[in-house]
Amino acid sequence: MPSAATFDRAKMEDLLKRRFFYDQSFAIYGGITGQFDFGPMGCALKANILNAWRSFFVLEEQMLEVDCSVLTPEPVLKASGHVDRFADLMVKDVGTGECFRLDHLIKAHLEKVAADKKTSSDTKAECQDIVVKLDGMNKEEMNAVLKKFNIHSPLTGNELTEPIEFNLMFATQIGPSGLVKGFLRPETAQGIFVNFKRLLEFNQGRLPFAAAQIGNAFRNEISPRSGLIRVREFTMAEIEHFCDPADKSHPKFDDVRNTQMLLYSACNQMDGKSAELHSIGQAVDEGLVANQTLGYFMARIQQFLVRIGVDPTKLRFRQHMSNEMAHYACDCWDAEMLTSYGWVECVGCADRSAFDLTQHTKATGVRLAAEKKLANPKVVDVTECQPNKGLIGKAFKKDAKIVMDQLAALDKEAVEELEKRLATDGEYVINIGSNTFKLTADMVSVKRSQKTLHVEEIIPSVIEPSFGIGRIMYALFEHNFKMREGDEQRTFLSLPPVVAPLKCSVLPLSNNTEFQPFIKQLSQELTRLDVSHKVDDSSGSIGRRYARTDEIAIPFGVTIDFDSLKSPHSATLRERDSMAQIRISLDVLPGIVRDLAYGKTTWSAVESKFPKFEQQESISKAA
Amino acid sequence: MPSAATFDRAKMEDLLKRRFFYDQSFAIYGGITGQFDFGPMGCALKANILNAWRSFFVLEEQMLEVDCSVLTPEPVLKASGHVDRFADLMVKDVGTGECFRLDHLIKAHLEKVAADKKTSSDTKAECQDIVVKLDGMNKEEMNAVLKKFNIHSPLTGNELTEPIEFNLMFATQIGPSGLVKGFLRPETAQGIFVNFKRLLEFNQGRLPFAAAQIGNAFRNEISPRSGLIRVREFTMAEIEHFCDPADKSHPKFDDVRNTQMLLYSACNQMDGKSAELHSIGQAVDEGLVANQTLGYFMARIQQFLVRIGVDPTKLRFRQHMSNEMAHYACDCWDAEMLTSYGWVECVGCADRSAFDLTQHTKATGVRLAAEKKLANPKVVDVTECQPNKGLIGKAFKKDAKIVMDQLAALDKEAVEELEKRLATDGEYVINIGSNTFKLTADMVSVKRSQKTLHVEEIIPSVIEPSFGIGRIMYALFEHNFKMREGDEQRTFLSLPPVVAPLKCSVLPLSNNTEFQPFIKQLSQELTRLDVSHKVDDSSGSIGRRYARTDEIAIPFGVTIDFDSLKSPHSATLRERDSMAQIRISLDVLPGIVRDLAYGKTTWSAVESKFPKFEQQESISKAA
Repeated sequence: MPSAATFDRAKMEDLLKRRFFYDQSFAIYGGITGQFDFGPMGCALKANILNAWRSFFVLEEQMLEVDCSVLTPEPVLKASGHVDRFADLMVKDVGTGECFRLDHLIKAHLEKVAADKKTSSDTKAECQDIVVKLDGMNKEEMNAVLKKFNIHSPLTGNELTEPIEFNLMFATQIGPSGLVKGFLRPETAQGIFVNFKRLLEFNQGRLPFAAAQIGNAFRNEISPRSGLIRVREFTMAEIEHFCDPADKSHPKFDDVRNTQMLLYSACNQMDGKSAELHSIGQAVDEGLVANQTLGYFMARIQQFLVRIGVDPTKLRFRQHMSNEMAHYACDCWDAEMLTSYGWVECVGCADRSAFDLTQHTKATGVRLAAEKKLANPKVVDVTECQPNKGLIGKAFKKDAKIVMDQLAALDKEAVEELEKRLATDGEYVINIGSNTFKLTADMVSVKRSQKTLHVEEIIPSVIEPSFGIGRIMYALFEHNFKMREGDEQRTFLSLPPVVAPLKCSVLPLSNNTEFQPFIKQLSQELTRLDVSHKVDDSSGSIGRRYARTDEIAIPFGVTIDFDSLKSPHSATLRERDSMAQIRISLDVLPGIVRDLAYGKTTWSAVESKFPKFEQQESISKAA
Repeated sequence: MPSAATFDRAKMEDLLKRRFFYDQSFAIYGGITGQFDFGPMGCALKANILNAWRSFFVLEEQMLEVDCSVLTPEPVLKASGHVDRFADLMVKDVGTGECFRLDHLIKAHLEKVAADKKTSSDTKAECQDIVVKLDGMNKEEMNAVLKKFNIHSPLTGNELTEPIEFNLMFATQIGPSGLVKGFLRPETAQGIFVNFKRLLEFNQGRLPFAAAQIGNAFRNEISPRSGLIRVREFTMAEIEHFCDPADKSHPKFDDVRNTQMLLYSACNQMDGKSAELHSIGQAVDEGLVANQTLGYFMARIQQFLVRIGVDPTKLRFRQHMSNEMAHYACDCWDAEMLTSYGWVECVGCADRSAFDLTQHTKATGVRLAAEKKLANPKVVDVTECQPNKGLIGKAFKKDAKIVMDQLAALDKEAVEELEKRLATDGEYVINIGSNTFKLTADMVSVKRSQKTLHVEEIIPSVIEPSFGIGRIMYALFEHNFKMREGDEQRTFLSLPPVVAPLKCSVLPLSNNTEFQPFIKQLSQELTRLDVSHKVDDSSGSIGRRYARTDEIAIPFGVTIDFDSLKSPHSATLRERDSMAQIRISLDVLPGIVRDLAYGKTTWSAVESKFPKFEQQESISKAA
C-alpha cells in the first residue's frame, strides 16, 4: 500500500468546496445528508468522464446504448429480487428513534474496542476477525455480536432495538389513482434486461452483444457519510454483455492478454495474504478469473481508469468471497481504489450468469432467449396433441381458441398424462382461469413424430461492468490533489487534459487595453475549436492567476504579454504540472491547444518544438 | 400553416418502433402510459442533441453548468410554489374511479359537439370560444362548462365527480425514519436558485451571468398521451440568466438583431389574428418583447432549433396571455413547433423577474442578492443598536451571542420600537425560539449616524429559457420524416449530420473475403476520429442496405467494392438526402467523413471536389 502520509483531506475538501466542484444540496435549507450538487467544475469534469466513457466503451466496442425510465413499477423489481432482498440491517435508538446501519455500527464499535489499551489481546484478535467477516454475516450473527459486546447507541448510550431490515428503494405512486406502486430504480441494469428482446432484434438476432446505459439511480441509505462515496442519488454507467453461456471467450482478449493487474483473490483474502500482480491472460488461463469476457472487461476497466487519471499504484481488483457474492453472480471482481477512507469499490465486474433474464421470463411469460445455430442439426422426438378443430369448435364456441392454445402449450409429460386420462377415464379436464373444459377422446389424439432442429434456444449469460461515477470522481480528486514543492499552501489538481473541467486559461498580463483584441480573438478561436476555456482578466499578478487556474485543474494557460503586440504575434503557453512555458505564434496556438486538450499530442512533443520561455513563477515575487 | 397532408404518423411511428428509436417502458410487464425507453438510435440522437446544446449555449456563452439533486425536500418546493400550486384539475368517473384531466376532457367534448352537424351555429361558436379560453380558466369556470354541457365519462357514460386539484409531483420519503418528505423535482430550475450564492461567488460576485442544467424532471401526469409529448419523466435543459433588474440589455443583442422570427403576440391571439414575421430587433424596440435579454435568448433558441433540424417554416414563438402566465412571470414566449398534434410547446422563454430568489430568501433567511456598484456613492441615515457587550455577556452567558446577532439584525422600525420600550417600560423583550431575553436600558443604546454607501444590494431578475428535450426530439422526427419520390414504402429520416445517431455506414459490396481487411481498417480509422459508424456486412443488396441506413438517419455511407481492391485504393461515398455518390481515395476518406459529420464542411463542397460515381439506386433493381 503506497504511503498517503502527506495527503490532507481537509485541505482538499476546502479546495473542492471553495471552487465549487461539489457541495451539499439544499444547504440554505439545512441540507440532507447523502445529497450533493456539482458546481461548474464538478459538472464539467463529470460530463468529460462520461464522454470519455462513451468513447472508450460504447463507440470503440459498438455497444447499444439505451436510456430507460427511472420510475419502475413494482413487479419488475419484485422479479429482480430488489423488493425482497435489497435491504440493509439497521437498529434504532429506543429513546430517540435515531437509525444506525448495523454493520457500520458494529465495525466502529469493535475498532474502538480493539484500539483500547485495556483490551486483552484475545479480544482484540476476535474484534479484528469479526470486522473482516462482517460483510458476509446474516441478521442473527450480527445480532449475536451486538449482544455479546453489549453495544449501545453511540450518541446517547441508550438501548438499541433488534435489527430491522430496511429496504433501500425510494417508493412512490404512479398515476392519479394512487394504486400503482413504483420505485426509483436502484440500478440502471433492469432497464436493459426488460428491453432484451428489442436489443437482440436490433442486433439482428446475433450474440454476443453489449448494451450500455448511463443514468441516475437512487438508494435510500440509512446513514450516508464519507462525502461522495455513499450518497442517496448517483450516476452509474453500466454495461450488460450478453453471450452464449457455453462460450465466454472474447475475440479481442489477445489485445489485453498481457495487461498487468493487481488481483486480490478470494483465497488470498481468506488466507490473510496480499493482492498479487498477474497478467490477465495468466489469471484467466489458471482459472482465477472465471472466463475471457470477464477478464477482457477487467483489463478494459483498468485501462479506462488510468486514462482518466486514476493512480495505477492505488488500484486493485478484489474478488468477492462466496458469502458476500450477490445471489445471482458466479464470479465478481470489484475495481477498488485506495483513498483516505481505505480501499473503495468504484467499479463492479460480475458474471451474473442467466439470472436476470430467467427471472423476467418467469415473471412475464415472455421468453427472453436467443437462438443459437446448431453445429449439427439435431433430430428430436416430438409428442404433441392433435386437436379435432371441428368438434372443439362446436363444443366450446368462442373459447375454442384458448383451449387449443392450451393444448399446444402442453409439454411432453402433460401430453402423456392427457393420453392416459383419455384412455382410462375417457375425458381430460382443462382449467383456464375460473372456467373448466371437459375434453373427450374424440376431440384430441396424440401424435408422435421426429423433427430436425437447426437452432436451439438459449438464455444468454450476462457479464456486467458497473461504474459508480461519483466514487470514481472522488478517487480522482484524491489521486490528483498535489502541493507545489516547498509551498504547501499552493495546492492544485493534476487531472489529465481529457477530463479537466476547462482545457485552457486565457490571461492578459495586465489590464492594458491593447491586450483586449488579442484576448477576444483567441477566445473566439478556441470556442470554434470546441476548447472550453476561461478568460481571467481580473486584477492580480500572473502568478496568482496561474495558481487559481491550477486549483481548478486547467492544464494549459496562454498569456498575452507585451511581446504579443509585436509582429509576428505570439503568446506564452504554460503547462500546469511542470509549470514549464514555451512561446508560440498565435496563428498555430489554438490548434495546438486543441490537440493537447483532446490527447492528440503530448506536452513533451509540443515543448520540444518551440522555444522555452524562461521566467521564474512565484506568487510572492510576481504579486 | 404549411401543409402536412402527406405526413403519415402511423408509418413514422412504425419506423421509430421497429428501429428502436424509442418504445414504451416495461412493455413486457404491460407497461405504464407516459414512460418511454430510448433505444440505441434514440439514445444517440438525444446525446448528440445535448452535446450540441452544451456547445451552443454553455460553451459559447461561458455559462456555469451545474448538476443538482433530483430528490428535493418539501420546504424547497413549498417556497417555490409547487407544493401549493403545481396541480392540474381532474374529475373521476363515479362508477369506475377512472381519472380524467379536466381541460382535455372539456376540449375533446366541445370539439365533438362543434363537429356535429346537428349543432346550431351559435353553439358551435360558443364551443370554439371556450376551447380558445380554456388555458386561462379556473376551477369554477371549468366546472360551469362541465355542468352546462352535461359532460359525462367518455368511456362509460357515468356521472363525474366535482373537479379535484391533483398535485403533479411524485412524493417519497427520504431517510429511514419516514419523517422527511421529499418530491422528485418537477423542473431543474430550483437546483440553480438554491445554489445562487455559490454561483455568484464562482463568478466573482459579478452580474450578469447564466447558469445551466441538463437533467431529468418528473411530473405525475393525470392521463398521459400523445407519445413523447406528454410523459411522466423527461429530460430538460434549462438556463437561468441572472441580471440587474434595472438593466436587461444584452451585450451581444446586435449579433441577433436582424433575425426574422414568427411571433404570435398575446394581442394577435386575443384579436383572432395570425402570427407575424418580425425581426427580433424591431420586436424589442417596439416593446412587443419585454427586453433585449429575453429577445436575445429567443433568437438563440431559434438558431439552435434550426441547426439541429427543426423545419423553420413549422416554428413560431407564442406569447403567453396574461391569464395563462405563471404567477411569477412578467413576459413569456413559448417556442412552438407544428406537428400532427398541432402546435406543441417545446421551449419556454420567460422573464421570471425576482420571484424565485425572493421566495427562497423569505423561506431561509439567506439573502440571495447581489451587490451593485453605485454610479454615485449614496449617503444614508443609519439607526442601529449599540449593545453593551459586557453587561449582555454577564446577563445571558452562552446566549449572549445570539442576542447580539438578533439586535444587529433589527431594522430601523424595530430599533425605534426598542428605543420607545426602553424609555417607557425600562425593558425590551426578545424571543428566540422558546427562550425569552429581557434587555434593560443599560444593556443597549440607540445610535444614529450617516453612512456612505458605494454599493447597493439588488435581487437579480431571472430570464429562463427552458428546453423540453423529448418534445424537441418528437418534432425533429416529424419534421425529418421523408419518403423517396415515387416510392412511398421507402421512408427515411433526414436528420442533420450533427445530431444523426450514427454518422456513417460502412458496407462491403458483397461478402467477398477480400473486402474484409478494408472494412476493418476503415472502421478502426473512423473510431480513432470519433466518428460513430455501423458496419453492415449482412447479406442483402447494397440498395436494400442503404435503405436500412436511411431509415436510421445515417447521413453518409461508404461502400467498399471491387475497384477498392485496386491501387490507389478508393471507395464510394454516398449522401443520404440526395443519394448522390462520389469516389474518394481511402487515405483521405475518414478525415472527410469526420469533417462532414461535425459540420466542418458541407456535402456540396465535398461533392464538387471528387468525381461523381454514377449508379442508379433502386431496391428492386439492386435486390
